[in-house]
Amino acid sequence: MRDVVRVLVLGTGRMGSGVARLVCEKQGLELTGAFARRAERNGLDIGQAIGLDRDLGSSIATDLDAAIAYSQPDIAIQTTCSRIEDAMDEITTLVGAGVHVISIAEELAYPACRSAQAADELQRLAVANGVSILGTGINPGFVLDTLIVTLTGVCADVESISATRINDLSGYGPSVLKSQGVGLSEKAFRQGVDDGSVVGHIGFPESICLIAAALGWEIERIEETREAIVSRVRRQTALVTIEPGQTAGCLHKAVAYRQDNAVIMLEHPQQVRPDLEGVETSDTIEIKGTPDIRIVSSPELPGDVGTIAIAVNVIPHVLNASPGLHTMLDLPVSGALLGDAREFIAP
Amino acid sequence: MRDVVRVLVLGTGRMGSGVARLVCEKQGLELTGAFARRAERNGLDIGQAIGLDRDLGSSIATDLDAAIAYSQPDIAIQTTCSRIEDAMDEITTLVGAGVHVISIAEELAYPACRSAQAADELQRLAVANGVSILGTGINPGFVLDTLIVTLTGVCADVESISATRINDLSGYGPSVLKSQGVGLSEKAFRQGVDDGSVVGHIGFPESICLIAAALGWEIERIEETREAIVSRVRRQTALVTIEPGQTAGCLHKAVAYRQDNAVIMLEHPQQVRPDLEGVETSDTIEIKGTPDIRIVSSPELPGDVGTIAIAVNVIPHVLNASPGLHTMLDLPVSGALLGDAREFIAP
Repeated sequence: MRDVVRVLVLGTGRMGSGVARLVCEKQGLELTGAFARRAERNGLDIGQAIGLDRDLGSSIATDLDAAIAYSQPDIAIQTTCSRIEDAMDEITTLVGAGVHVISIAEELAYPACRSAQAADELQRLAVANGVSILGTGINPGFVLDTLIVTLTGVCADVESISATRINDLSGYGPSVLKSQGVGLSEKAFRQGVDDGSVVGHIGFPESICLIAAALGWEIERIEETREAIVSRVRRQTALVTIEPGQTAGCLHKAVAYRQDNAVIMLEHPQQVRPDLEGVETSDTIEIKGTPDIRIVSSPELPGDVGTIAIAVNVIPHVLNASPGLHTMLDLPVSGALLGDAREFIAP
Repeated sequence: MRDVVRVLVLGTGRMGSGVARLVCEKQGLELTGAFARRAERNGLDIGQAIGLDRDLGSSIATDLDAAIAYSQPDIAIQTTCSRIEDAMDEITTLVGAGVHVISIAEELAYPACRSAQAADELQRLAVANGVSILGTGINPGFVLDTLIVTLTGVCADVESISATRINDLSGYGPSVLKSQGVGLSEKAFRQGVDDGSVVGHIGFPESICLIAAALGWEIERIEETREAIVSRVRRQTALVTIEPGQTAGCLHKAVAYRQDNAVIMLEHPQQVRPDLEGVETSDTIEIKGTPDIRIVSSPELPGDVGTIAIAVNVIPHVLNASPGLHTMLDLPVSGALLGDAREFIAP
């Protein structure tokens, strides 16, 4: 059997720590290093920093070259950012050092969607260095794209696709709440949408590109809207109290058109405590076609553990892939990695 | 662009005709031949035989070598049987002629499950002839295996998996109804189970092998049970009338054990008109793990069109695969094939 797979994690926040802990649990994988952007993390023992109850004997590096040098990784998992432009430098450094890359940056789920130039550059670099790059995550990467594509596999024809993902932001931190406009007045919410501080969901265009690429659809345009979810009741969490009339979150929608018909309609209302207005969290996918399909996950497939899990579960498939930039459409179906990871890696 | 993909369909019954018609609808695919086992189909125009309203100008052959010779297929889709031993001769002939093969024979979904020897032989032949072989279908092949594996992809851990597929046999023909013991007394049903005439579902061991292989689980044993679904009401279809006390179908269950724990529990009650006792058709998948997942398709993903669709949708992936015997776990996620098939085929 081959040696254990050496894994470097980039980012030691909620996602990065979760990925790092899960790597530690998996047979055949070894967490050999961690990189953090924040200077104050430099030199901390990794085990303590990611929430293990033991030292790992190696330290967080805030210089990526140094992290690569000491951890000698086969593969790196990037959890430091959402945007391509913010992700490129780290990926370029990793790939240049011959390290495979999995990124949970939302825009990496389908890089060509925002930047054909960045996608070409990543493809060229990956091939030149004999490694693979994959963007993944629960969404984009799974619920509103890969799972939808999977379901269309039993369709003889598809006319249109609608999907809605309803979640609860109560467990998330201040930066996530801010990005969804939680706790604002309606007016401040609209201003936030205009000035870009209320972001909504990052990943609709990527999900749409993934679906369209899988089905062979040419999409003419994508229209996105962000509306305030104005609370009718008092909603309270550990971090925020929302009075009636304030915004509990952001209803973000995207509609993709083909030959002037709306063919992909995605909705992702993100808010705190939807249950207080009788709204259950769920994922719903509806396909109009032959046959019609309607499938509901209740509650929704959870975002945090789901992203952490899929980023680790795909490791063998990324190592097995031909060198290049890949999407979730290029890899075999990736189940939970429960056995020894080495048994899933081609010789 | 490459030439159109030439497709030979084996079998011209309900499934084979459906596959053949769908091939005719797809850009980049061409139905160039049809083979039937039944001598009385020999020489019939294919278009008429598969239910098109036009002649196709070529005829059904009941000699497989002749069918291959006149249709010069790139790929064949086998719909003639369910069992490996019954499928082997045709597949061997096709592969020997350099033809890729997709089979909807249930036991081909994971050939090594019933016969390691047959799987080895198919693997050897496929490699020697530079072609790929894939078994697929709605079930086994999708609902109770590939879809489950896909969902575990967002799990950090999995303890156990339960899934139930409830369908309605009302649209099926006499041979399917007989195989599920529809319309028997309870006593006759039990006799039918004992003598093998009441078959239940073919494919539980294959689905379990697919799940276990994907997750890295070693399964010690599989226990299957077949119980009569005794009707409490009168159920009538075009083909059969079931009085209260008679069997409306077969509740077939399979449980897979690992370290003496039941880890995969699959149920597939197949009956006519479950709605008359208030039972809705559906597919339900429940995963106990991190996270727990519960997903419901209501109604169930339909068996006939689903199998026809998936057998055609996977064509580009089978042509792209490395030579050998494959399962659904080896191929990229296969969505509905809506564009030109040739655009999905690697040069």
